[in-house]
Amino acid sequence: MKFAEYFPVWNKLTAQEQEIISSAAMERKVEKGTMIHNGSLDCSGLILIKSGQLRAYMLSEEGREITLYRLFDYDICLFSASCIMQNIQFEVFIEAEKDTEMWVIPPYVYKSVMDRSAACANYTNEIMATRFSDVMWTIEQVMWKSMDKRLAAFLLEEIRIEETNKLSITHEKIANHMGTAREVVTRMLKYFQSEGMVKLTRGYVEITDEEGLEELAE
Amino acid sequence: MKFAEYFPVWNKLTAQEQEIISSAAMERKVEKGTMIHNGSLDCSGLILIKSGQLRAYMLSEEGREITLYRLFDYDICLFSASCIMQNIQFEVFIEAEKDTEMWVIPPYVYKSVMDRSAACANYTNEIMATRFSDVMWTIEQVMWKSMDKRLAAFLLEEIRIEETNKLSITHEKIANHMGTAREVVTRMLKYFQSEGMVKLTRGYVEITDEEGLEELAE
Repeated sequence: MKFAEYFPVWNKLTAQEQEIISSAAMERKVEKGTMIHNGSLDCSGLILIKSGQLRAYMLSEEGREITLYRLFDYDICLFSASCIMQNIQFEVFIEAEKDTEMWVIPPYVYKSVMDRSAACANYTNEIMATRFSDVMWTIEQVMWKSMDKRLAAFLLEEIRIEETNKLSITHEKIANHMGTAREVVTRMLKYFQSEGMVKLTRGYVEITDEEGLEELAE
Repeated sequence: MKFAEYFPVWNKLTAQEQEIISSAAMERKVEKGTMIHNGSLDCSGLILIKSGQLRAYMLSEEGREITLYRLFDYDICLFSASCIMQNIQFEVFIEAEKDTEMWVIPPYVYKSVMDRSAACANYTNEIMATRFSDVMWTIEQVMWKSMDKRLAAFLLEEIRIEETNKLSITHEKIANHMGTAREVVTRMLKYFQSEGMVKLTRGYVEITDEEGLEELAE
């Protein structure tokens, strides 16, 4: 079963535990823009990403967003199964940033295996530690980095992910990633443009001086 | 052994696992101000607090601090054993805010039990989920709340912890908790004083209108 390839502790499970998981796991395809996990309203289960891209973000009462982390091929999404961990007392939202193919293990199926298998529980621990590290990185950025450095780092991340220097992205979208207002992003991008680091056209941000942005981000 | 009372899954461990932990656990007393965990330099082990108070905080390269959470009697400190989880890729600092009595389970002793016991691994998971929730609360405060609301909430937390309305705390200390500059705290406290909510004297902040602060914090 190809599934095993996406679940690193597969070989540490008993045949019975493997059977419990594989008979319950479902394949699912979602289109770009699909809401995968809507805070505490949803609990679809553990998601193993075959291909695609998910974004986990936080949402304020006023509707402001900030991206916490992204997930790519072979990553595992734990918070889409947050109902199985009673001490998760926060809301995370997860959307598909690209068309995504995945396996979904229903939450209570996964929990039943985790309850009996130390290997599975410890692996879950490592997933959570990884997400925790991602979120700590974000809080460090927000706390100690100026907006120009953060925007430079964000644009560099985007060109790596999209594999093009001409990003199809609005100022509003960038603001939602960074947890700031659109006006702040627009002002900063215009400053970057005046420095020759980007070129702005309707719906696009083209990076024209990658090295300059890298120097700024450091 | 009284120890069991501080370790909620004690009864789910086998006699052998209990023996491994109890024969390795050490009692330790530290004075207020003691550094318990210095980022990735330390890995003293899992700490079970008998009595006292610990503070976990983040430190910027420039030496600025922000409090992530506090731990009290019966709480368990996991990040003092961060070396046993390879995916913890961030630095947390932990200091004793009050004289503290604790048990310390050496990291690799704890890991050896966690590796074989699903109950222990799942319990560790729940501790991590709790700290994750604390940190998410902090990031929410930093992202979406104005400084006056955060300062009001901090002062209310302090009078609950200290059980007195006259707090012995410097503006610098408050700034370190909140991840901001001393000047910002001083300015805000002076504004609170002009509104009759606090009274400032050398080394002290006295809360004179708790209800007013509560209204502001909400």
